[in-house]
Amino acid sequence: MSIILTGGAGFIGSHLCARFTKGRERVLVLDNLSRGKEEYLFSQSDQNYLFFQKIDVANAPLVASVVKEFHQKYPVDIVWHMAANSDIQAGIKQPSVDLNDTFMTTFSILEAIRPLGIKKFTFASSDAIYGDHGPKLKLTEKTGPLLPISCYGAMKLASEALLSASAESFLDHVWIFRFPNVVGTPATHGVIFDFINKLRRTPDRLEVLGDGTQKKLYIHIDELLEAMDFIVSNSNEKMNIFNIGPDDSGCAVTQIAQAAVEIVSPSATIVYGTEPRGWVGDIPKFLYSVDKLSSLGWGSKSSSIEAVRKAIVEISGQGSEKV
Amino acid sequence: MSIILTGGAGFIGSHLCARFTKGRERVLVLDNLSRGKEEYLFSQSDQNYLFFQKIDVANAPLVASVVKEFHQKYPVDIVWHMAANSDIQAGIKQPSVDLNDTFMTTFSILEAIRPLGIKKFTFASSDAIYGDHGPKLKLTEKTGPLLPISCYGAMKLASEALLSASAESFLDHVWIFRFPNVVGTPATHGVIFDFINKLRRTPDRLEVLGDGTQKKLYIHIDELLEAMDFIVSNSNEKMNIFNIGPDDSGCAVTQIAQAAVEIVSPSATIVYGTEPRGWVGDIPKFLYSVDKLSSLGWGSKSSSIEAVRKAIVEISGQGSEKV
Repeated sequence: MSIILTGGAGFIGSHLCARFTKGRERVLVLDNLSRGKEEYLFSQSDQNYLFFQKIDVANAPLVASVVKEFHQKYPVDIVWHMAANSDIQAGIKQPSVDLNDTFMTTFSILEAIRPLGIKKFTFASSDAIYGDHGPKLKLTEKTGPLLPISCYGAMKLASEALLSASAESFLDHVWIFRFPNVVGTPATHGVIFDFINKLRRTPDRLEVLGDGTQKKLYIHIDELLEAMDFIVSNSNEKMNIFNIGPDDSGCAVTQIAQAAVEIVSPSATIVYGTEPRGWVGDIPKFLYSVDKLSSLGWGSKSSSIEAVRKAIVEISGQGSEKV
Repeated sequence: MSIILTGGAGFIGSHLCARFTKGRERVLVLDNLSRGKEEYLFSQSDQNYLFFQKIDVANAPLVASVVKEFHQKYPVDIVWHMAANSDIQAGIKQPSVDLNDTFMTTFSILEAIRPLGIKKFTFASSDAIYGDHGPKLKLTEKTGPLLPISCYGAMKLASEALLSASAESFLDHVWIFRFPNVVGTPATHGVIFDFINKLRRTPDRLEVLGDGTQKKLYIHIDELLEAMDFIVSNSNEKMNIFNIGPDDSGCAVTQIAQAAVEIVSPSATIVYGTEPRGWVGDIPKFLYSVDKLSSLGWGSKSSSIEAVRKAIVEISGQGSEKV
């Protein structure tokens, strides 16, 4: 049985793609290459198992026809839906970005598979669906109310809602992964990427947005892949929703800045802003429960700061055209 | 200050419109007349305060231009967003119905007001956002996970999510009303409307979808208007989310069928199906907390069955072209 992988040329998607094709699973990758790159796919994957289509996944009629044609040749068992906008601030400035790339992609791929009898679906959701519950409440999969403060979080929650309705009407199993920040290469954005870029431009000075007290959870891409694989193999409800992350309270921007300076440009001075929140849609601190995933039997080996340090080393070593 | 009222020609919207215009508040009604009717507006409203535009509220560029023009003449203070698909089963068969009418209407009106500095927003949400939590858990505004089982519920939740993100970036106050079933005239659909129609066609027999054990909450439109008005006047947080309903455990389909027969066609025999659930997306039984609204100081005077009986009398008396 084959796999449909949306966003397969992006950061997380290209790692998934490599894993699938190495396991000799046939994969149809759909990606608009807005952030993803063809080279991410073709540098690492077994070409015999990789089928790539450059396409806007939000284009429902086109996606329906491409998916149908592929499914007729190579029957598809499961969709891995990773396509989304990944620039939260872009979506806050222009909500149509997340409407199209984060939500309409979900609507479109669901409409494409509905008539074909493809009944398994995995989805990359986010801790951004919870909103700001303050630094004391530990966010579990049952926490409510869900009050996302970014369009990105809102459109991830909208996608979850549509998947829930689809599970009632035509899907057999849905796996929803609520990711924290995911780090590693190939990086195209994010705080580590930004800090390394800034240090390349001004090796003596690192300017930090906000006062550096913002604290977030980080997981390395290698561990994220392990966790997703474990969840799909070991949970079998109609709706399987899991927070994924390390079992710690995250790492502060100050720690990331210090690690970046130490690894990339040890002589740099760090200059902080004064606001506890870096931008609209950013949540300064939160606690995240991974107890459900622990109970299922999986735990992260690295802490947030360990994941970050590993990623700084990797990203600072990645091809100069990307950093 | 003026009001924008989407879906103002529909069941709930036309009642709101009448109330606003009677209070000499200027209202711009936007409605595509898919279920709403112009006569609902023009039969009861003070024409000097009513501005009506037949428009698909999901058409973002058109809505933006109409709203901007109106706002320049008559500055708008608040949006009452009632436009939505109201046929849950239609949306399950064809998800694009709820995508367009229930969600894109929200996206579109938000995009229209964002550049104009209109900062208050009320929204007709639904108990359908919760999904099926079984007959024992009392659903509060904090209940999670939110797992809607209809596209209607999913797109109401998607709208709530977008409103939450918009409250973070540009709105001052959002009031979200989670409605139960709302009954009264002018009725265009729903269980009471269907039963009366069936009894008109076959006065000796009432066929009921499902086994009749489904139990739901019902509120009469007059009490709903009171509740919404009370909430907007008495709550002032950034996000104000309230379940609205009677403080009871609802009324069963058997009770509605018996009341309809008694009032409309006393000699009819009632014939039930065998399934506890009437259709995909229907939740057989649930408990709904209105404690938050009670604490604010408002309680419904009628029980679910009282609201239903009142509506049966009204609907069976409404113009024959509608029943």
